[in-house]
Amino acid sequence: MASNDNNDQFPKVQGGGSLILAWQVKNKHVLVVGGGEVAAGRILNVLNANANVTVISPSSGLNPEVRHRIANDEVTHIDRVFEPSDLEILPPSNGPPDMVLVAIDDPDASTQIWKLCKEHRIPANIADVPPECDFYFGSVHRDGPLQIMVSTNGKGPRLAASIRKWIGTQLPVGVGDAIERMGVLRTKLRQMAPSPEEGPGRMKWISKISDAYSWDDMCSLTDEDMDNLLTFYAPDKVPHLDMLKAMRGGRAEEDIDVFDGSFGFSVVA
Amino acid sequence: MASNDNNDQFPKVQGGGSLILAWQVKNKHVLVVGGGEVAAGRILNVLNANANVTVISPSSGLNPEVRHRIANDEVTHIDRVFEPSDLEILPPSNGPPDMVLVAIDDPDASTQIWKLCKEHRIPANIADVPPECDFYFGSVHRDGPLQIMVSTNGKGPRLAASIRKWIGTQLPVGVGDAIERMGVLRTKLRQMAPSPEEGPGRMKWISKISDAYSWDDMCSLTDEDMDNLLTFYAPDKVPHLDMLKAMRGGRAEEDIDVFDGSFGFSVVA
Repeated sequence: MASNDNNDQFPKVQGGGSLILAWQVKNKHVLVVGGGEVAAGRILNVLNANANVTVISPSSGLNPEVRHRIANDEVTHIDRVFEPSDLEILPPSNGPPDMVLVAIDDPDASTQIWKLCKEHRIPANIADVPPECDFYFGSVHRDGPLQIMVSTNGKGPRLAASIRKWIGTQLPVGVGDAIERMGVLRTKLRQMAPSPEEGPGRMKWISKISDAYSWDDMCSLTDEDMDNLLTFYAPDKVPHLDMLKAMRGGRAEEDIDVFDGSFGFSVVA
Repeated sequence: MASNDNNDQFPKVQGGGSLILAWQVKNKHVLVVGGGEVAAGRILNVLNANANVTVISPSSGLNPEVRHRIANDEVTHIDRVFEPSDLEILPPSNGPPDMVLVAIDDPDASTQIWKLCKEHRIPANIADVPPECDFYFGSVHRDGPLQIMVSTNGKGPRLAASIRKWIGTQLPVGVGDAIERMGVLRTKLRQMAPSPEEGPGRMKWISKISDAYSWDDMCSLTDEDMDNLLTFYAPDKVPHLDMLKAMRGGRAEEDIDVFDGSFGFSVVA
């Protein structure tokens, strides 16, 4: 096919998807309107992402989980129905909320809140009303720092949940811990070699470790192992885990006999 | 443990996660500032979610993929650097953008755009500058309507990509098609039984089908099979796929001999 603009060279656009994003709500102010079961789920979602949460709902409408969050000081509670001024001055920050999640059984009131949010340019989700949502929630598997979100874009929520559960059973045990350990290693490496110029070198070495080590290897890295591992960064080498184990207790790399082929360096160059 | 507020009864808050959301940008106006490789990736992300995209970048800074999107009329191109007024009047909508994605090699200009976006309350992502991001992108597996996003919350982007690839190889072949077919079935069911009161009944029956049918079964459903399947909605039954196959060509359910036990109804009550 002779053409000045070869279509096959670039990925084809596959419309119909969502833009799946990891929203940062740490220390942001999220308003949840409603106190029932759906609200309880939303509250847990945003608390897991370290948001400051204000729940507006008459006490009579609170389910036991929301009551527990309030009693436990995990959220701020305002004991009344929503008022339009809540989008301007909301305790405890007394500024406008950064995000609004509505889960009440009153379609007309919901629609009014949605319209006000759009006037104030505040991202919002009205539960069960897709046209009144800037974003949808999905089915999320969580294991420490690892989050896996499954969306079928509304075609099969039940199937999304079953795929999410299936992924959870298939993932190696301890994968969340392994990722956490690699996060610690990255932090230690950045402390040891902080200059921005080393960024690409740091990334390359961490990638090599990520590719060479099994999930079990990563999980088993002690703080001492990590400190020993970091001595291999400057020469840009990747030792086998057995080498790190042999170095425990202060033995230097050069004192260790490579006696059975299981020690020494990974083939990853 | 005697307590008025039993902590064990409710899920514990696990901080440190992100709020993973399926953002709806269909027909929304997304501004991409920059025309290099990172911008090309962002543009594909938002086009896959049916956004209207405007790219601001001098022509000299466009990579071949972005050039291709422009030549193909997939995006609107403005051939210059960003100007603050772009956040107020942006072609082709001539309104403010709903989202801004910045991918330029100029940290000072990036920070300026970020601050302007915050003044205008426009969600924004400045590539490679985590503190100047309302949201992060992750590693997404796509198969038709199915999207699976893997995030390690910055602890191991390489590991996120490898888990995403691994999930892609482990998923049953055709799972995206299966979900698409179930989406068609849901649409047909809503057309056949449109009343809102039937919502819970529709959801329950579709869930039964989702649980009883294998991915292969779902994939193999023809339009004729679906029409036959819908006749089982009123009596709230779930036929085996073999029954649907036997009904092809206009045979009625009652004319089909249940001769070998493979026909008849699923055990799912």
